[in-house]
Amino acid sequence: MRIKVINPNTTDSMTRKIGAAAQAAARPGTVAVAVNPARGPVSIESHYDEAVAAVGVLDEIRRGEAEGFDGHVIACFGDPGLLAAREIASGPVVGIAEAAMHLASFVATGFSVVTTLARTCVIAEHLAEQYGMARFCRNIRAIDLPVLDLDDPGSEASRLVAAECRRALERDRCGAIVLGCAGMADLAASLSAQLGVPVIEGVSAAVGVVETLVGLRLATSKHGDLAYPPAKLYRGDFHALAPTRLAS
Amino acid sequence: MRIKVINPNTTDSMTRKIGAAAQAAARPGTVAVAVNPARGPVSIESHYDEAVAAVGVLDEIRRGEAEGFDGHVIACFGDPGLLAAREIASGPVVGIAEAAMHLASFVATGFSVVTTLARTCVIAEHLAEQYGMARFCRNIRAIDLPVLDLDDPGSEASRLVAAECRRALERDRCGAIVLGCAGMADLAASLSAQLGVPVIEGVSAAVGVVETLVGLRLATSKHGDLAYPPAKLYRGDFHALAPTRLAS
Amino acid sequence: MRIKVINPNTTDSMTRKIGAAAQAAARPGTVAVAVNPARGPVSIESHYDEAVAAVGVLDEIRRGEAEGFDGHVIACFGDPGLLAAREIASGPVVGIAEAAMHLASFVATGFSVVTTLARTCVIAEHLAEQYGMARFCRNIRAIDLPVLDLDDPGSEASRLVAAECRRALERDRCGAIVLGCAGMADLAASLSAQLGVPVIEGVSAAVGVVETLVGLRLATSKHGDLAYPPAKLYRGDFHALAPTRLAS
Amino acid sequence: MRIKVINPNTTDSMTRKIGAAAQAAARPGTVAVAVNPARGPVSIESHYDEAVAAVGVLDEIRRGEAEGFDGHVIACFGDPGLLAAREIASGPVVGIAEAAMHLASFVATGFSVVTTLARTCVIAEHLAEQYGMARFCRNIRAIDLPVLDLDDPGSEASRLVAAECRRALERDRCGAIVLGCAGMADLAASLSAQLGVPVIEGVSAAVGVVETLVGLRLATSKHGDLAYPPAKLYRGDFHALAPTRLAS
Amino acid sequence: MRIKVINPNTTDSMTRKIGAAAQAAARPGTVAVAVNPARGPVSIESHYDEAVAAVGVLDEIRRGEAEGFDGHVIACFGDPGLLAAREIASGPVVGIAEAAMHLASFVATGFSVVTTLARTCVIAEHLAEQYGMARFCRNIRAIDLPVLDLDDPGSEASRLVAAECRRALERDRCGAIVLGCAGMADLAASLSAQLGVPVIEGVSAAVGVVETLVGLRLATSKHGDLAYPPAKLYRGDFHALAPTRLAS
Amino acid sequence: MRIKVINPNTTDSMTRKIGAAAQAAARPGTVAVAVNPARGPVSIESHYDEAVAAVGVLDEIRRGEAEGFDGHVIACFGDPGLLAAREIASGPVVGIAEAAMHLASFVATGFSVVTTLARTCVIAEHLAEQYGMARFCRNIRAIDLPVLDLDDPGSEASRLVAAECRRALERDRCGAIVLGCAGMADLAASLSAQLGVPVIEGVSAAVGVVETLVGLRLATSKHGDLAYPPAKLYRGDFHALAPTRLAS
Repeated sequence: MRIKVINPNTTDSMTRKIGAAAQAAARPGTVAVAVNPARGPVSIESHYDEAVAAVGVLDEIRRGEAEGFDGHVIACFGDPGLLAAREIASGPVVGIAEAAMHLASFVATGFSVVTTLARTCVIAEHLAEQYGMARFCRNIRAIDLPVLDLDDPGSEASRLVAAECRRALERDRCGAIVLGCAGMADLAASLSAQLGVPVIEGVSAAVGVVETLVGLRLATSKHGDLAYPPAKLYRGDFHALAPTRLAS
Repeated sequence: MRIKVINPNTTDSMTRKIGAAAQAAARPGTVAVAVNPARGPVSIESHYDEAVAAVGVLDEIRRGEAEGFDGHVIACFGDPGLLAAREIASGPVVGIAEAAMHLASFVATGFSVVTTLARTCVIAEHLAEQYGMARFCRNIRAIDLPVLDLDDPGSEASRLVAAECRRALERDRCGAIVLGCAGMADLAASLSAQLGVPVIEGVSAAVGVVETLVGLRLATSKHGDLAYPPAKLYRGDFHALAPTRLAS
Repeated sequence: MRIKVINPNTTDSMTRKIGAAAQAAARPGTVAVAVNPARGPVSIESHYDEAVAAVGVLDEIRRGEAEGFDGHVIACFGDPGLLAAREIASGPVVGIAEAAMHLASFVATGFSVVTTLARTCVIAEHLAEQYGMARFCRNIRAIDLPVLDLDDPGSEASRLVAAECRRALERDRCGAIVLGCAGMADLAASLSAQLGVPVIEGVSAAVGVVETLVGLRLATSKHGDLAYPPAKLYRGDFHALAPTRLAS
Repeated sequence: MRIKVINPNTTDSMTRKIGAAAQAAARPGTVAVAVNPARGPVSIESHYDEAVAAVGVLDEIRRGEAEGFDGHVIACFGDPGLLAAREIASGPVVGIAEAAMHLASFVATGFSVVTTLARTCVIAEHLAEQYGMARFCRNIRAIDLPVLDLDDPGSEASRLVAAECRRALERDRCGAIVLGCAGMADLAASLSAQLGVPVIEGVSAAVGVVETLVGLRLATSKHGDLAYPPAKLYRGDFHALAPTRLAS
Repeated sequence: MRIKVINPNTTDSMTRKIGAAAQAAARPGTVAVAVNPARGPVSIESHYDEAVAAVGVLDEIRRGEAEGFDGHVIACFGDPGLLAAREIASGPVVGIAEAAMHLASFVATGFSVVTTLARTCVIAEHLAEQYGMARFCRNIRAIDLPVLDLDDPGSEASRLVAAECRRALERDRCGAIVLGCAGMADLAASLSAQLGVPVIEGVSAAVGVVETLVGLRLATSKHGDLAYPPAKLYRGDFHALAPTRLAS
Repeated sequence: MRIKVINPNTTDSMTRKIGAAAQAAARPGTVAVAVNPARGPVSIESHYDEAVAAVGVLDEIRRGEAEGFDGHVIACFGDPGLLAAREIASGPVVGIAEAAMHLASFVATGFSVVTTLARTCVIAEHLAEQYGMARFCRNIRAIDLPVLDLDDPGSEASRLVAAECRRALERDRCGAIVLGCAGMADLAASLSAQLGVPVIEGVSAAVGVVETLVGLRLATSKHGDLAYPPAKLYRGDFHALAPTRLAS
């Protein structure tokens, strides 16, 4: 099975970290290929970054379909472009926030999210609502450092994440932690060991969900809402983005 | 007051229709300027179209900020890019689905939406939920014709819209109709006259809401979630989209 | 356009304050006439006050209809008698809690309410739920002083309101403040300047919403739930309150 | 134990019917006294009727408190003035919609309401929501005849009620029926016998709930939201309605 | 009327305490018989305890039906086996969590639950949701002592309960307390006296609700979901538990 | 990896069918062992059946823990004993309703459930709510035949399932079907082929989710609500069910 894992931002080091987490999580026989779009933000920390990054994600999904991948992962905790990606994909497409929250609900009656910038808490909150996971999401906490600090060995980001996880376990009546950024993919194992609770990191979670869906031959439904988009003209710079496969 | 009304698709005739509806609705002293992005889909009928169109909307918001508009309207019933647009705008930004649903809740205890393609019903459903309007939204109905048929004098689109509105009033226990497409902007007055109920069309609704917000000096909050996006590098084709104003 | 702004309590000084806020907010060409009923409580601080005040509101709506007003505002944060008023009105009727909460949702992803007596928090909470605004309402805070202290220059009410707004911005993850009492109508501008966030005051908000609805010819739906009440006898003291216009 | 059962409308024959149902339902030792206000609508079929009737209800609650009743029932399916009544009452106050819906949730996983005029369905819908009973309320059905037809032996009202109950049982996946009008109090027993399911009529339900609360010495909480209203001046005709007992 | 009150755990002293509370709450003419199953946990403090205890409850319901009881109470705050019990019962079956939460909603706009072990808070939370009572439930607090400490005169359990109730009243904006364990049945009266608010204890609440339902001849609906279970074979040790009465 | 798949009923032929589906779905290297309890109902078609079957499930979970299984599946669409099972398990425990609904939400914006007896629809409805999946669950449909008819080659059960799936796709605005009974495990592939949409069968779905959780080393959280139950005495027949491992 071949899964394409799309880092929606354009920072190579983060793509490599995501790729390592994806491949480490994959079953024998699964190849997880991590990429990032050629265009878009170097990190995603706002609705604005999300909106632009979504187009880069769609670039990679279209290419991934042509390349014959069995499924796709969108590896940013805002799950940018998720439903649009499903429309143009034949196989499954899974977001890391989505996968992490769902898996958390199988191992605890409640979870808290720990993320980076405080301004992105509202994004996680909206997603929890859209995925039906609000009843499990006890709190959304932020360390309030930029995403790329997670890639800086000198930063105190990882220490702050651990501290915030501890606060969550003490105060939020939660049994599990969801890490709210793909850049935290390398922290899950050690946090889980330290804290003694499931610490769920979305990249590996989403790879697992895609593997399960592909294994069960469950692809995105093409009946109704998520059918291929109607073919039509896109003007200007976005000409090449036009959907060409006819809607069924 | 100068309001920029952005048609997120790239079809001129629809931009003109939207512009006419916006100006007709505007108060004396308000100038409503309708535009559409140079790039993007000629109509918006899928999540995919929405995602790409959002970038065109953001192009126009950024330009609109530079041009000194007092507020912006996003004139597609999926409200593409709404929260992202708010982050980069100093004044208010209002979507037409959002405005129409809110105004409907002031004049009836329930409304039904009548839209174009059936596959877009889920988009309206998700928005109703996100805006807190699900408790007022009795049903979402589709005529299941493409958006651009609304611009074709020979199509039966407008007749089907009227018929679907009638069915809604008979069966949905609703007191008002929300028209679910900017391309229906020219139908509201005659439908309202025929049906004897409020028929709410989003373009005029959104212009009214922006006028009210600007009149009350209520701009998008820059405290917290909707502050200007952090300045950062955007790579490749999207270089010029990078947010440059520093987050407060 | 002529809008009648009804202060549901019977305190003249508050009616004048409300009238000033309404007229200041109105567009050129709008006349906002503030009145209060001849009968009822001098301030509204309980469900009981609300219930009795509702009849005074309905007195004024009926008179307002006879006088030919284009729309009405109910200027108490409990929106007493709102749906009943809509039934007997031909034009739009808007409550100030309703208008303020809706407008706040256009400029922030969350707002906190700051009100007077703690016992009235539950009234605001119930309204937020009924209007679909609970998902935006982060908190409801009270200074726990009586309403009429807001009219007493020697009271510390306005200082406490400002302090509570500050606490809300620090602790509630909100981007805007909704002032939870018509008696705070004169505080919004200075609070907004001090705090640097949108501070939404219901009287001006409701005037703006009525202006928009009237401008768009959107009147209360007479199809279904909000049709004119069936004509019937009212006995005793309330004889004159009997609805006489036939239900359509 | 003495319970005052207030018919919020001013139609004697209906008060007598309500009184008979209340006394028939009461335990040995309970005296159920049915009254109606001297002022107000002869039937309640709109939000407007509800709002005016609420004052009549409060008249009777105040008198009931002076007369030393142990508890009160508000015997109209809109429960007019319920929270206001609780504020001025020392004992429990229970509405018939409230009591019927709650009791229904003990004997079935879902119920349907059958009421009179279609325009009042929205009132029942709002109450189900406010009482937390929306998850049990499968449907709200109307026979669309006026309330007072229930008192007219020549009308087909009772036949239509039975037919609508049958349709509910066939189509709504409900296990119980809630009768949505105090004027149906005399129909419950025979409907229950005919249909073979619990048919819950609010007057007897509310008497039972009040008896239970009084028996358990559970009175309306005077801590917080439902404390006695602050004493204050009421002007004009409503002078005598002013709350005089000091808030604790 | 004869009501069987089932203590789902197998601790005699607690059964006696429950029996005393039940009989004290019962009306003249009601006989409340408290029992506990012969098999099962000595206290119920986990989902696991609940699941096993449910079978003991069903043993007693089946026996109670044969013995001709008019109704049943399930006297553990997790309401184990409630819907299953309803299926095999002809009369009403009421859980103490259910009864207490419902009655609390009649005397306050919000309540807090005070329970024993912190790990059981989630059980109360899930029940509040299932009963539609989440909107009234302000908080769920635990003293974090085992259930059987409530039966130990030397333990500090009752002091801690009182302290937690006080904290709830100060911080949770609640007007009433719901005691979250049948073992607290003897504390309600003195707590209510000390705290000056309604303190609702489920055993007496459930007895009252059953009395009301039986008095109104409202039995569990046998139409649809709660009809008698289909007759079938149960294998092994559970042979005797097989439902034998034919589903209608 | 070794997964124990527990058929909560005691019908061997169904256990074999479930085992075949589980093993067919499992990855290379996974051993799926299907068992059923020695005691309990031969099919599960009521809350009562569910409650008794839960104890059989817990029997098998305890044995499975001793046998060193890596995870468990509960293979009845009511997910009997799920949270109790999690408390006594060290690895993950997943129910088939839970797994099927969650996976459906990854491949469609809405799904309909097709189940056996109409009386069990309410069980699926309650689970959808508890899992946060109600917003995705468009409808729950029943063929209204007993569970064991699915094992009878002469019955028309499978034809009726197919017909009901078709109706769902035509009328429910759903993009996927969830089969609401473990006894339908053998129908998914052919239905999916016939209908051209994802048809999700819980046994394979749950095996996939357990594989993913085990692969990611995500076990049931032992922090808080799902910690091992406190050790204590169980009396009588259930003596051996007593939890003996100490709560952490």
